[in-house]
Amino acid sequence: MSLALERIVFFSDAVMAIAITLLAFDLRLPSATVVDNESLLRELAALGPRYFSFAVSFAVIAVYWTAHHRIFRHVVQFDGGLLVINLAFLFFVVQLPFLAAILGAHGQLPVATAVYAAGLFAMGLTSTLLWTYATRRGLTDTAQAPDIADFQRRSLAIALVFAASIPLAFVAWGLAQLAWTATLIVFVVQRWFRRPRAKMEAG
Amino acid sequence: MSLALERIVFFSDAVMAIAITLLAFDLRLPSATVVDNESLLRELAALGPRYFSFAVSFAVIAVYWTAHHRIFRHVVQFDGGLLVINLAFLFFVVQLPFLAAILGAHGQLPVATAVYAAGLFAMGLTSTLLWTYATRRGLTDTAQAPDIADFQRRSLAIALVFAASIPLAFVAWGLAQLAWTATLIVFVVQRWFRRPRAKMEAG
Amino acid sequence: MSLALERIVFFSDAVMAIAITLLAFDLRLPSATVVDNESLLRELAALGPRYFSFAVSFAVIAVYWTAHHRIFRHVVQFDGGLLVINLAFLFFVVQLPFLAAILGAHGQLPVATAVYAAGLFAMGLTSTLLWTYATRRGLTDTAQAPDIADFQRRSLAIALVFAASIPLAFVAWGLAQLAWTATLIVFVVQRWFRRPRAKMEAG
Amino acid sequence: MSLALERIVFFSDAVMAIAITLLAFDLRLPSATVVDNESLLRELAALGPRYFSFAVSFAVIAVYWTAHHRIFRHVVQFDGGLLVINLAFLFFVVQLPFLAAILGAHGQLPVATAVYAAGLFAMGLTSTLLWTYATRRGLTDTAQAPDIADFQRRSLAIALVFAASIPLAFVAWGLAQLAWTATLIVFVVQRWFRRPRAKMEAG
Repeated sequence: MSLALERIVFFSDAVMAIAITLLAFDLRLPSATVVDNESLLRELAALGPRYFSFAVSFAVIAVYWTAHHRIFRHVVQFDGGLLVINLAFLFFVVQLPFLAAILGAHGQLPVATAVYAAGLFAMGLTSTLLWTYATRRGLTDTAQAPDIADFQRRSLAIALVFAASIPLAFVAWGLAQLAWTATLIVFVVQRWFRRPRAKMEAG
Repeated sequence: MSLALERIVFFSDAVMAIAITLLAFDLRLPSATVVDNESLLRELAALGPRYFSFAVSFAVIAVYWTAHHRIFRHVVQFDGGLLVINLAFLFFVVQLPFLAAILGAHGQLPVATAVYAAGLFAMGLTSTLLWTYATRRGLTDTAQAPDIADFQRRSLAIALVFAASIPLAFVAWGLAQLAWTATLIVFVVQRWFRRPRAKMEAG
Repeated sequence: MSLALERIVFFSDAVMAIAITLLAFDLRLPSATVVDNESLLRELAALGPRYFSFAVSFAVIAVYWTAHHRIFRHVVQFDGGLLVINLAFLFFVVQLPFLAAILGAHGQLPVATAVYAAGLFAMGLTSTLLWTYATRRGLTDTAQAPDIADFQRRSLAIALVFAASIPLAFVAWGLAQLAWTATLIVFVVQRWFRRPRAKMEAG
Repeated sequence: MSLALERIVFFSDAVMAIAITLLAFDLRLPSATVVDNESLLRELAALGPRYFSFAVSFAVIAVYWTAHHRIFRHVVQFDGGLLVINLAFLFFVVQLPFLAAILGAHGQLPVATAVYAAGLFAMGLTSTLLWTYATRRGLTDTAQAPDIADFQRRSLAIALVFAASIPLAFVAWGLAQLAWTATLIVFVVQRWFRRPRAKMEAG
């Protein structure tokens, strides 16, 4: 990988690392109302919806970082278009702490669920576009093409789950949130069972 | 590229990545007034000016990061002057979240528009100075000189758009903000159509 | 080390660097009550418990970063499982500023001490799991195996100190906090006296 | 430079990059009191002391980052002691945004000036210690030793300026702040005129 390409990857990693760390910023206790063990436990319990939003959003960035990591191992070149699509992807990544705060505070409102789902759909779409563009323009190592096609299908699948949950939010927001959680768990479990990379292949 | 040079690039990347991610920090809903779907939609709509400021500022850092990325591919050496100018450039980069917050909250005030434009002018000027200095002092790969001259012209052009919008802000702040937006869109479109780099050249 | 592996290390470093820097965010003076030297000194003194929490949490991330740094020098391959465990470890790292804020504000409450200890136990457990998994799955340089076993023992020992301090917090929270401090000091002193690495070995 | 050593440098860079970017977080306008151009200008002017603190603190991190950057080009090995001293240095770096906030809000109080100076003295001391330790323990490229001795003298000189300004703050805080500013300007000017590094030397 050339240094210029490496720098794109590095900048993306840094942005994703900052966004994932800032997610926890929404976890905060109101100091004033905590006076003893009981009130502290009560306030911690009241953080439940925010913690759910934090955990889901952490998993979302983790999943997309993993995807970015996996695909950029096959990218050997870049052009202006790839740069622009990657920045568009990061544009949605940096908004995730904002969307997570909305979901954490107002998760029981269909609009909050729909707005969050819309943000994640945009992230999934630009992520899928990134890989589609890279392969179409011949910026990837063609020997790995089948692997990439399989990846795109799954990347698009996640984006579609979020797209479908936008209207679903207005019918049953709980179901929409459950659909995300299930999708993320499936992704993580699949990732776990991916067989170890040979030293050579990982190089 | 030597490791010492790489570290300068890395530090700059990290600062720009943090600044671009912190921009979204200004997007926040007042929890107290959100009680149902209608009030949530109303508060989201009220975030309009802040979202505009966020999007413009994201594009500004993206454009300057792209510029920094593109030029440092040609820088093969550094000296104290380059280090100092680069730090001066970063001095204005880290202030962007502050300027974006002013624009987001008071964008309809000419002073806010002028202050924001002044900050971006300073960023554009130090960025242009960086490349001018690097080429004048022979710190770049001379084989790439024409490319750099072309780049300087465009970098300076952006800086001048922001300089011109300082007085313009007091006459018609909407026009000044429109001028930035148009400039940024032109830059992104141009970037998109830049032809793919050969593997060799990108190395 | 392959680039793909390097990127995992880099992302982890970035997350730990951000989390360690955000810890200081909880150190803040209430401006309103500071009017002269006396009130400033009084407010600084009142920050004592928060400063203790900040310093302990800084040491915790420093210790785990050092551990991560030390072990990944021996990891030569990765698979999906290592990726998932590493992300689980980071999931607890990003929560540390939140836990530190609880401890800083309510350190004298057993529940706060227990919650903090639980978070650190989870961090220690995933960290230990990371190394156990890596060696079990043959992802490390086997020539270094004894070194790793020694490391796991100590990593697990730290995790157990935090586990033991969960019930201890309800009996004597001061003793629990003292146990952490002692453990961290022992670790740092041990680290100091580790003999210098030969150039070759460090490579 | 080995990868293990590179990771220490990287982690330090990331922490310094985050700390330098967070400095601007203290620049914030009170939205409520800004209603027109006049009140905006008035509030911007009222930010003066905070801006001074921000600019000085930015220069301080820039100077120490430059120093760190310059010395680590000569470090070829590390041991536990170097790791611990480097983390101690970073312990003071992450506190700078907190100290800058105190100085920005209460700069006219001798205690605020003294506390800030004490923090910077600690940073300067650990920074000097880092280089002294590295050379004493033979962790640096001995061919560069005279350069390092010269560097240590200047690094110590900066630390002493801050040490001397602790008592000075109680006599004339303005003079103490002037001494820092002058020292930082001298450092930056000196840095500017450092002659360009040969390609070979920079490698």
